[in-house]
Amino acid sequence: MNTFRDRLLSTARKNDSWLCVGLDPDPARLPGKAAAAQEMADFLIEVIDATRGLACAYKPNAAFFEALGESGADGLKRVIDHAARHAPVILDGKRGDIGNTANAYAAWAFDVLGADATTVSPYMGHDSVEPFTRRADRGVFILARTSNPGAADLQTLPLASGELVYEHIARVATTAWNPHGNVGLVVGATAPEELRRVRAIIGEEPFLLIPGVGAQGGSAEAAIRLGGNARGEGAIVNASRSIIYAESPEKAARELRDELNRHRT
Amino acid sequence: MNTFRDRLLSTARKNDSWLCVGLDPDPARLPGKAAAAQEMADFLIEVIDATRGLACAYKPNAAFFEALGESGADGLKRVIDHAARHAPVILDGKRGDIGNTANAYAAWAFDVLGADATTVSPYMGHDSVEPFTRRADRGVFILARTSNPGAADLQTLPLASGELVYEHIARVATTAWNPHGNVGLVVGATAPEELRRVRAIIGEEPFLLIPGVGAQGGSAEAAIRLGGNARGEGAIVNASRSIIYAESPEKAARELRDELNRHRT
Repeated sequence: MNTFRDRLLSTARKNDSWLCVGLDPDPARLPGKAAAAQEMADFLIEVIDATRGLACAYKPNAAFFEALGESGADGLKRVIDHAARHAPVILDGKRGDIGNTANAYAAWAFDVLGADATTVSPYMGHDSVEPFTRRADRGVFILARTSNPGAADLQTLPLASGELVYEHIARVATTAWNPHGNVGLVVGATAPEELRRVRAIIGEEPFLLIPGVGAQGGSAEAAIRLGGNARGEGAIVNASRSIIYAESPEKAARELRDELNRHRT
Repeated sequence: MNTFRDRLLSTARKNDSWLCVGLDPDPARLPGKAAAAQEMADFLIEVIDATRGLACAYKPNAAFFEALGESGADGLKRVIDHAARHAPVILDGKRGDIGNTANAYAAWAFDVLGADATTVSPYMGHDSVEPFTRRADRGVFILARTSNPGAADLQTLPLASGELVYEHIARVATTAWNPHGNVGLVVGATAPEELRRVRAIIGEEPFLLIPGVGAQGGSAEAAIRLGGNARGEGAIVNASRSIIYAESPEKAARELRDELNRHRT
């Protein structure tokens, strides 16, 4: 089976890159007419073309397209189709529901939109995640320790067991919830010590998807050194705003990719 | 300001009903051609017409429409427009993200789709909820203790503070995260003792949205008696499959509404 893991590793090695380009097209920050879905898609397709060969993955954000209504669904599909020609696509949707609803969301992410992987919230537990993980050829990134201030409201609280909430999620999501070996975690670069803890808990194999480098102030060095495994792999470092709004997205992507690679050695 | 709270209370009192009709149209269970978005919308519009005057709210589920792609977005909008003529609409989307992404999801739920309220996941904390709650005329239902088995994986774990995770979420979501008084909680009817605990923690005012009655086996009596406030109000009891797939949705809705009312006295 050609799994998401295989496709991601193969692309990362071919492009010598652990940079994921986040496609978060806030309409308010796009030039000209980009607030319309087709123009937003066109803008992102230009970003994809400018950065191809420099990324291990693309991460489109469903929200900005959904906020545009019916035409947004079509625009999102166009962006994913285009990105998928160059690298695996991680759809950022952060869905979390149960039973038939989760089945429907998995069908949306993997079949309607054709994403290679997607992000999922852990709050509802194993049966909200299973409809995604059972798709063994796709990847599932479960939120563990996010990069925002609100992470302190639940994720970093200590449980009576001694684990912090995000440590507990990191452990169970990559073991009990992971029968097909296709679970990764989302851990923000803004919390380096927690990145180190998560990698220690989950071992060498699972991927980490690491937002927070660039506009949010997280360090590229910490993301790679603490999030990567012993081979300097496995830390998928996402940057969105610092690339897509750059004067030259190609130059911004190349510089960040090269910086990440300097810290892999 | 005409708030969601006012609209919900006014409809519940006018229709003498605390029944919320969940519009969860699993295509596999719909008759005939309903797997197509327009037929699915037509099917649900018939359910809405059959149950009007019997519900305090309608709760469409975004997932089943999204799974149908572009045409789904239009179908969902038609269903919401139609339901809103009769009762407030609670969009079940369970989104949770931060900053501009959460803003985009709030715009999707409240502006693009025109919902009166929506469900939100608490995992990412206060800044993932604030873009929804700041819309003071709309309602926000935050997941606390869901009705599925996976609730035990995180929600019912004890924190070092002594609170269980869902108790902590219930408390902070209705206080610190609730500057406009428009936060309610989702608590499943399948866990009656936890329903009682949540009502004790949050006091009289916040609404509870209670799934799990009917097909999932939760008791209507427990939902109303333990989830309601001292006036027998505030427990919005959702039933989906047991109504929309009934031979007569009108009869099924009337019977459940009347059963709920018997326990309010």
